Amino acid sequence: MAEKGIQALFGKPLHVVNVGLRSFAESLEDQDVSVVQVDWKPPRAPRLLFTKKGVDIEAANTEAVSRIMQGRPVLIGMGIAREVIPGFHDRLILHAGPPITWDRMCGPQRGAVMGALVYEGLAKDEQEAAELAASGEIEFAPCHHYHAVGPMAGIISPSMPVFIVKNETFGNYAYATQNEGLGRVLRYGAYGPDVYERLRWMEEVLYPTLKAAIESIEGGIDLRALISQALHMGDECHNRNRAGTSLFLRAITPAIIRTCPDKERAAQVFEFIDGNDHFFLNLSMPAGKAMTEPAEGIEGSTIVTVMARNGTDFGIKVAGMPDRWFVAPAGKVKGLYLPGFTEEDANPDIGDSTITETAGFGGFAMAAAPAIAKFVGGTPQDAIEATLEMYEICYTEHEHFTIPALNFRGTPLGIDVRRIAETGILPRLNTGIAHKEPGIGMVGAGVLRAPEKCFMDAFKAIQEW
Amino acid sequence: MAEKGIQALFGKPLHVVNVGLRSFAESLEDQDVSVVQVDWKPPRAPRLLFTKKGVDIEAANTEAVSRIMQGRPVLIGMGIAREVIPGFHDRLILHAGPPITWDRMCGPQRGAVMGALVYEGLAKDEQEAAELAASGEIEFAPCHHYHAVGPMAGIISPSMPVFIVKNETFGNYAYATQNEGLGRVLRYGAYGPDVYERLRWMEEVLYPTLKAAIESIEGGIDLRALISQALHMGDECHNRNRAGTSLFLRAITPAIIRTCPDKERAAQVFEFIDGNDHFFLNLSMPAGKAMTEPAEGIEGSTIVTVMARNGTDFGIKVAGMPDRWFVAPAGKVKGLYLPGFTEEDANPDIGDSTITETAGFGGFAMAAAPAIAKFVGGTPQDAIEATLEMYEICYTEHEHFTIPALNFRGTPLGIDVRRIAETGILPRLNTGIAHKEPGIGMVGAGVLRAPEKCFMDAFKAIQEW
Repeated sequence: MAEKGIQALFGKPLHVVNVGLRSFAESLEDQDVSVVQVDWKPPRAPRLLFTKKGVDIEAANTEAVSRIMQGRPVLIGMGIAREVIPGFHDRLILHAGPPITWDRMCGPQRGAVMGALVYEGLAKDEQEAAELAASGEIEFAPCHHYHAVGPMAGIISPSMPVFIVKNETFGNYAYATQNEGLGRVLRYGAYGPDVYERLRWMEEVLYPTLKAAIESIEGGIDLRALISQALHMGDECHNRNRAGTSLFLRAITPAIIRTCPDKERAAQVFEFIDGNDHFFLNLSMPAGKAMTEPAEGIEGSTIVTVMARNGTDFGIKVAGMPDRWFVAPAGKVKGLYLPGFTEEDANPDIGDSTITETAGFGGFAMAAAPAIAKFVGGTPQDAIEATLEMYEICYTEHEHFTIPALNFRGTPLGIDVRRIAETGILPRLNTGIAHKEPGIGMVGAGVLRAPEKCFMDAFKAIQEW
Repeated sequence: MAEKGIQALFGKPLHVVNVGLRSFAESLEDQDVSVVQVDWKPPRAPRLLFTKKGVDIEAANTEAVSRIMQGRPVLIGMGIAREVIPGFHDRLILHAGPPITWDRMCGPQRGAVMGALVYEGLAKDEQEAAELAASGEIEFAPCHHYHAVGPMAGIISPSMPVFIVKNETFGNYAYATQNEGLGRVLRYGAYGPDVYERLRWMEEVLYPTLKAAIESIEGGIDLRALISQALHMGDECHNRNRAGTSLFLRAITPAIIRTCPDKERAAQVFEFIDGNDHFFLNLSMPAGKAMTEPAEGIEGSTIVTVMARNGTDFGIKVAGMPDRWFVAPAGKVKGLYLPGFTEEDANPDIGDSTITETAGFGGFAMAAAPAIAKFVGGTPQDAIEATLEMYEICYTEHEHFTIPALNFRGTPLGIDVRRIAETGILPRLNTGIAHKEPGIGMVGAGVLRAPEKCFMDAFKAIQEW
């Protein structure tokens, strides 16, 4: 076997004993280096307790996680993006992750932009769409700048229907599109007639049916309650949403039956959702966004409120500096691949779905979802360990989200940049994997850690507060 | 505090170190004696490998568990008990557990019989019903004698609608009524206008709606597949059926929408099932019955094919002696009680729902359902230990039912009477708890072990084969 990466420098297989920072071992393992990991941690530096200006960081963080936990996200309606998302316009395309220009966008995000421009009727084909995207006539902006979140490429174009989630505690709103399913879908960078046909059906049939049903339900659908239950039913509500999708169907179906004028249409809408166990992701994500946003702007807080990837960069924000992104290159995912695809086909980490980990579920609640090993790889024991490790870098444990297998312990909540700097432990994520070329779609799913640099940069910035 | 039970004999609190047979410690604990359990096991006796006649017991058991695992129970239709269960007649009442006469029936089973006779129009009130039941004019028989199973009191009267489950591999059928929900319901021994009104609605609205929907589904609904998925979603499919109920709704709803002529009725049927997370129990039970029955009659097999309780007696059957019941007094349940009720109100263990443990799920798959601790008491760790211990008395591990938290290990399948005799470990069950008086209903839920005597008697009988 030919050596690759660091081993190529030595011309022979390397065997390394790594002491301490686990991410270093993982980086070597990515290069097929045999590594024995010894968990040694340096004595912790004294925790930073006050900013230079004298703001009490602990008090700020207590307030931040309290606001996140108090948030009660409720699905109250749906609308067309350009009509309901404040500030939207006809030439705006939202994307996942931190800000990025067309020329730096990864393949699947370009593919999804091209597809969205054809779907919008702004270009007659993907070639023309690519030219339009490069022309400067289209404004690109992160979903997160518009209270929105998008899985994978995360494209929201003006005509797309979106769910409207209201945080009933604080009055803020969050938005996300309807989930298309897996495989050849726009959010994984696929385009083509099959993709547009599905998007058209979702706009013309799925959307009005769900909108009428949701809006007929007095008080809406309590998404925090659904997430909380789904965590007791084997979901972590990021890459496993079978229970969440089931519970959403239980919550909405009587309203669909009553409000839909055509029973065949009602049955087809039910079947579309039933056919896609990831449908609930596009509700758990805006629920997470609606919960974390009220923590933004708390002076002195070192709690992470945004983690998002555009497939090129990984970006985070912390509560005390809501206007600033800290970015680093998006990581490589270790995963399981669909038949016919390998790691060679994989785009780096992409999507806003890491809002789930940010809000105290997703990869941080892996212990609740042992069966996810079948989708993202690893073992159920890894899933337990992932959650246990995340307590080390989180400020608290969630009051509303609990894990039965850990004796109903609350999920790790509130990633504290200080604790990452102290421990060297990086957030664990799980994710789908898109093909790196535009136009193809999903190739697998897996796990990885967030990149160190953005947290270290944030920690340096915090020391200057 | 006044000492009770064995402690009363000594007039002071006892502290006991129990070495070996755990059921002895539990019996002391039931009497509030402080017990330290030391897990010592005697060296195992050589396993009985051949019957006196020379039949190879291992081969017989391999065949028995193979038949159970190969069974594919499919919900193919519904009908009225007297019309579809072979041998039913207008004066027959089926009940849970081994055979019993009216004079020995426990309170909740009497209550349910009285309620059923009023519901049937055979008595004008419960008093008259009790007289009729005692008169000898009504024939009582175990559900198990009619390929049927009934939870708790387990009453099936002639007019009740039943699910029809077909084992597609072997061609046999099993039957169970529709689940009424919790609280004041017939199967927990309650009677009265509210109970009859619900049963009437289930006969006149729920039944025809579900029947039309089920019968419109090409190939029926594969219950083994639903149980298998539910075990990955936090159910053990005996006392936790939230996932199973969700998955059943997902499987049947499009057919309900298409076949029900009245959309308000369709919505109400959906809401009734959605309102009762135990609905799937009455499908997991006949699925278990359909799977275990083909193992009956395998000469020399020591695998248990029936465990059932009538609230007075606990009875089992083994595959090699399908016509013989081995019985012992029904046990006392340790559990969580509904507000206003205590252990004093509890009837002993009752119901055919232990068919789930017999078929390799239910209490034997507790490790799949850590959240069940909220319903039956104990901790998630107890749930793991319950499953691990049951491997000791089971012949094999299920190929189709797996437990993610145990790294997808198959559930313990095939209770082997020889192994119970060797190890002294008794089957662990979980169960609902009925009030001991007729007419009241549910008071709680909990766990217990099956009584030793019936297994020891079966083992003695086996030695004479």
